[in-house]
Amino acid sequence: MNKLIELICNSNHIAVTSHVDPDGDSIGSILALGTALKQKNGNVEIFVNDTLSNKYDFLPGYSLIKSYDAIQDKSFDLIFVLDCGDEHRLGSSVECLEKSKSVVNLDHHISNNHFGDINIVDVNASSTCEIVYLLLSELNFRIDRAIATCIYTGIVTDSGNFVYDNATDRTHLIASELLKYNIDKQEIMYNLYQRKSIHSLKFLGHCLSNMELELDNSLAIFTITASSLKEFMVPYSDVEGIVNYGRDIETVKISVALREDKDHKVKMSFRSKDDDVDVRALAELFNGGGHKKAAGATISTSLAEAKMLVIEKSKQFIRR
Amino acid sequence: MNKLIELICNSNHIAVTSHVDPDGDSIGSILALGTALKQKNGNVEIFVNDTLSNKYDFLPGYSLIKSYDAIQDKSFDLIFVLDCGDEHRLGSSVECLEKSKSVVNLDHHISNNHFGDINIVDVNASSTCEIVYLLLSELNFRIDRAIATCIYTGIVTDSGNFVYDNATDRTHLIASELLKYNIDKQEIMYNLYQRKSIHSLKFLGHCLSNMELELDNSLAIFTITASSLKEFMVPYSDVEGIVNYGRDIETVKISVALREDKDHKVKMSFRSKDDDVDVRALAELFNGGGHKKAAGATISTSLAEAKMLVIEKSKQFIRR
Repeated sequence: MNKLIELICNSNHIAVTSHVDPDGDSIGSILALGTALKQKNGNVEIFVNDTLSNKYDFLPGYSLIKSYDAIQDKSFDLIFVLDCGDEHRLGSSVECLEKSKSVVNLDHHISNNHFGDINIVDVNASSTCEIVYLLLSELNFRIDRAIATCIYTGIVTDSGNFVYDNATDRTHLIASELLKYNIDKQEIMYNLYQRKSIHSLKFLGHCLSNMELELDNSLAIFTITASSLKEFMVPYSDVEGIVNYGRDIETVKISVALREDKDHKVKMSFRSKDDDVDVRALAELFNGGGHKKAAGATISTSLAEAKMLVIEKSKQFIRR
Repeated sequence: MNKLIELICNSNHIAVTSHVDPDGDSIGSILALGTALKQKNGNVEIFVNDTLSNKYDFLPGYSLIKSYDAIQDKSFDLIFVLDCGDEHRLGSSVECLEKSKSVVNLDHHISNNHFGDINIVDVNASSTCEIVYLLLSELNFRIDRAIATCIYTGIVTDSGNFVYDNATDRTHLIASELLKYNIDKQEIMYNLYQRKSIHSLKFLGHCLSNMELELDNSLAIFTITASSLKEFMVPYSDVEGIVNYGRDIETVKISVALREDKDHKVKMSFRSKDDDVDVRALAELFNGGGHKKAAGATISTSLAEAKMLVIEKSKQFIRR
């Protein structure tokens, strides 16, 4: 920790970044840490590789986030890489690491490969935001309402509102501290959950009505054609949560969403709810990966063939 | 508080009960308090007016809950009435209060009418379980894993997983303490959210597909016929959450579910997401009531007529 404080004090140019396709935890954590660092050192860049969706535009400091294009000619004394299990999750902005004197890798993924000069990896944290909170406290950085809002949002999104096992007693203790900063929880919840489109709800209705159950109702299958996405006018991102609805059926052990993709490909998302039904192993049969209860893969085949394969391969993972 | 301790110590026969149609907070709180009292005093009855659904059968001590039938000939020195805004929420078991020497009214509803001899009403608590936790701590009662499981379940169900405004810094602090008792959070979450029926998901799909939007997409309407409930083989209780899906659409200010009931009646459920759209006032126009963001009413009319009335009356509540 002393080494990190020294590094921060001795760095003139600092950058804070996170992975491609950033989520609530990555955006929350880069804003929280970036804002806190700016209070000590004006010369801090916050950036991500992609252009951002507007989902998190309510977060304080959101307009400070630059795209990689805007900073790619710069070099840094110190770069913080947040919420990245490995450096390749940075996309093309990975080249930025070579132009930085020191790399701090701050993350909570169990698969983290410790690519930094300093690695702060806590696999027991609900989120990278949880680690940022602990770090700021330890470094005696001032936490204000804006920073608390970003951290709370990251914790909420990565822990599924404290539902997942990763939300521990420490997570709740931190949430308790954050709420004391008088953050507008209602605004956070509105932005996270109550800005859905009519199209997306109608599409959910369509998917549920067409959900199929196989293997004595232990396997739920959602088959999502490219034409249905077009018909309902929904973006790919609206498909993401649908697989969870199948998992939440009492008899279901595995839920799978099969989404028709470009170039005769099918994207598969798997969910389970029991520790003894390991969908990562199932995904690996299709050269995919992920976690025990949430995994994915992409295969080159038709939707009908993909469905047949999934039914066949799921059998061995569903004990009866 | 001293008076309460004295009462507990001097009571030979104690009862703990809650309202009709009990939910996670009422069942969690009577089990938590009842179990704790039993440790001090063997002679404690835990009961509710109704026969229970099996939704909460995973809670420790669940089998101790008796129906009112089984205890109605008894009288008590002390009765705790939990999570009841007024005594009439007890249904026919309200007569039990007259056969009890002292009544403790322990609740968190703002509408509470202080019907007890001792009233412990904390409208800032997320749940009655939150108050039970504070009470047990103050009385130096021993909290164990079973009691912690019941309290955590009540907090989670009444705060919508810490999403609602009622989940404060104190609520999270208590959740943090409860998780230290090594409770099986995964089992709780499985029982609360992952035991849905296929029928109920198919019915949700049907409702979403048939959802109507009125008043420039600011009013979402779900019309639920008696025949659709029969066709999808779902109980009335499966209808409850559906109105929330409409609320979560960005353009929607009021969501309403109209459910065809017996005897030419329609049950109306209203939801809003903004503090300035008061659906309680809307429900009152139909002789109903509730909270600002969640209210209900029952009217004697047809579904078609109810829909027309709701559209007409909603206009004044939706500012444009």
